[in-house]
Amino acid sequence: MTPRPPGSGLAVRPMRDADWPAMWEIVRPVLRAGETYTVDPHLDEDAARDFWCGPPSTAVTVAEAGGTILGTAHMGPNRGGPGAHVANASYMVGEAARGRGVGRALVLDSLERLAAQGFESLVFNAVAASNRGAVRLYLDLGFTILGSVPGGFRHPREGLVDLHVMHRALR
Amino acid sequence: MTPRPPGSGLAVRPMRDADWPAMWEIVRPVLRAGETYTVDPHLDEDAARDFWCGPPSTAVTVAEAGGTILGTAHMGPNRGGPGAHVANASYMVGEAARGRGVGRALVLDSLERLAAQGFESLVFNAVAASNRGAVRLYLDLGFTILGSVPGGFRHPREGLVDLHVMHRALR
Repeated sequence: MTPRPPGSGLAVRPMRDADWPAMWEIVRPVLRAGETYTVDPHLDEDAARDFWCGPPSTAVTVAEAGGTILGTAHMGPNRGGPGAHVANASYMVGEAARGRGVGRALVLDSLERLAAQGFESLVFNAVAASNRGAVRLYLDLGFTILGSVPGGFRHPREGLVDLHVMHRALR
Repeated sequence: MTPRPPGSGLAVRPMRDADWPAMWEIVRPVLRAGETYTVDPHLDEDAARDFWCGPPSTAVTVAEAGGTILGTAHMGPNRGGPGAHVANASYMVGEAARGRGVGRALVLDSLERLAAQGFESLVFNAVAASNRGAVRLYLDLGFTILGSVPGGFRHPREGLVDLHVMHRALR
């Protein structure tokens, strides 16, 4: 028997309204930890749902295996008007599901989805340098670090860490 | 007689409600031109006022000389939660008042004001490379270009130009 490959049985699809309670179980601890998102860690459920699912998102997806939601992504234009051809996206993976390729599957899906929506490139505005797994994954998937805001992120244990701006062309 | 120095008689102060109509005469053509802001160029007046004066701004200022409003700035946290110690600011100068040090006065005032509000540094997320006067001014005032999103801005005449992320410490 060969070991089960990472992400086996994993599918990424657009969220449905009924998915939110399971998504909130992923989103809540990620926000509350305050270790990765430059968002108020105390957002209540309604505000968190607006943040994740509301405008300007053009797609919100979930990664699912065996009927269990393991992670989620949202994506859309990074900026308005003359900057709206560049996309932004964010990803969250449930703690119990980490290290199984869920983040990678969500990113790969978002690259296809955003290219299909006509975006030229994808920018992450604020990747905390302390979020080493995410930085490594993005580099592995062809993103580059365009630059870093020195001490732009106040990590609850590591203190001030740099905040990377990362970028990848989509076509 | 010596020539009047640039910016002479110029003062920067917090906006008052009664300033908005004069500010809108500056904001409207800047937005409509679509040459500098990554914002929908067709924003109506209410949405433009929200964009410029609403949350998350912690200060909105005007530059005034002889009772005439020549430019305006808004500023506040660039991001939320663990990123909220880094500020963002934007500036607009009325077309007739350009080249008179109004932009410089607005930037210098914002540096002081944001430092007094406790921010550690100031980031501009999206400075179009085609906005040469602004880029030159920011560099002259000690900002550096942390990185640039390739082709991140669709200029109405120049086509795709880079979008700089610029940064300066405030303490």
